[in-house]
Amino acid sequence: MSRHPPGTVHGVGLGPGAADLMSVRADRLVRAARHVAYFRKAGRPGRARRLVEGMLRPDAVEFAMDYPVTTEIPVGPAYNDCLSRFYARCTDHLARLALTGEDVVVLCEGDPFFYGSFMHLHARLLGQVPVQVVPGITGMSGAWTASGVPITWGEDVLTVATATLPEDELTRRIADTDALVVMKIGRHLPKLRRAVLAAGRGDNAWLVEYAAMPEQRVRRLAEVGDEAPYFSILLIHGQGRRP
Amino acid sequence: MSRHPPGTVHGVGLGPGAADLMSVRADRLVRAARHVAYFRKAGRPGRARRLVEGMLRPDAVEFAMDYPVTTEIPVGPAYNDCLSRFYARCTDHLARLALTGEDVVVLCEGDPFFYGSFMHLHARLLGQVPVQVVPGITGMSGAWTASGVPITWGEDVLTVATATLPEDELTRRIADTDALVVMKIGRHLPKLRRAVLAAGRGDNAWLVEYAAMPEQRVRRLAEVGDEAPYFSILLIHGQGRRP
Repeated sequence: MSRHPPGTVHGVGLGPGAADLMSVRADRLVRAARHVAYFRKAGRPGRARRLVEGMLRPDAVEFAMDYPVTTEIPVGPAYNDCLSRFYARCTDHLARLALTGEDVVVLCEGDPFFYGSFMHLHARLLGQVPVQVVPGITGMSGAWTASGVPITWGEDVLTVATATLPEDELTRRIADTDALVVMKIGRHLPKLRRAVLAAGRGDNAWLVEYAAMPEQRVRRLAEVGDEAPYFSILLIHGQGRRP
Repeated sequence: MSRHPPGTVHGVGLGPGAADLMSVRADRLVRAARHVAYFRKAGRPGRARRLVEGMLRPDAVEFAMDYPVTTEIPVGPAYNDCLSRFYARCTDHLARLALTGEDVVVLCEGDPFFYGSFMHLHARLLGQVPVQVVPGITGMSGAWTASGVPITWGEDVLTVATATLPEDELTRRIADTDALVVMKIGRHLPKLRRAVLAAGRGDNAWLVEYAAMPEQRVRRLAEVGDEAPYFSILLIHGQGRRP
């Protein structure tokens, strides 16, 4: 038995990419944290970590969770096993820390419960140690704010999809919604563009790169080449009732 | 010609309902504001205004924008005209203030560009005076965080709809999505429940009332009667890939 009451693992949403767009609650937790964990691509500084640069305590202990190199493995059982073992190792470390009585802040881009990696830790930590989640401004909110145009009016239906879906499925979804957000674009941009055009929505599609960050860029899809950074979001704005 | 450069009208997202879930940027703008405007139902204190209780400058000048009584008018041309005149009057006031050189903070629940009333002012203010928008944590992020379960995994499609839609349209949308958020429920709850059941999703539907607020309540839809407050959100969580 531990001599301490367990600490809490906080999954803290940092918002879309500007430090002052994190919530007051997130800001306080990050600045007070003795233990800070974050995902990153191996060899990269990590976007979540960069977002809190200058905010951490001088004595903060950092735990970088480097994604295993998975791009060489096609999505399937081997890929899932590799990721599953990775998440289990991360969970073990965080749970052990919490069981010594230490709180841990896990830095999460956007909102932790919206397509976030933290969810995979959260599901494994439940029942082991206390877990708290602080919601954040989503990347898509950052994107439609950057576009300068509201995303949904009145009774508009909003569909959020990932560009990893099959092309015919994307086309069907894009044709059957008022407002649209597509995430996880990257190398799927050519397929996504074909789907947008097949759905007849090419004139209304916008690509927002690095919303709320210094590199922010908003362009019509028609003006964009065949490459997009991972942090890009496609938008089609709703046209609902506006008295 | 004005002797001053014009002030800016800031549409500031306050997030889902807890003061410390507004962004650091929003918190600073609200605390510094000399002029604060907000929508409210006539005769009510206004949820946005209550959320910033204790934060305003002692000399802040408040401008309450009381929605005209519209529940007696069916949605249609007369209803739209009534609202349109109301938004025009509010816009005139804000624009006049800004043209005297004063900044104005408009308090917006949730995210201003996501089903928000501020959008109707924004569209009218553009071209008259500078307008800035601060995104906020949406009410739906507050709701799925309150539910303790992530809303979207992997390639889940998320559909966001309003309960004001016709029943058959709701049923079709609910049957054809992985994850679901329904907003603007109120008196439409019985219709929404029929649509959820007809779509075969009754066992997985949750109703979140007053997310992130002291009165927060999370229940299975099956446990809820036929009344729900306006600030309730229906959720069906996605079940996508989770290594």
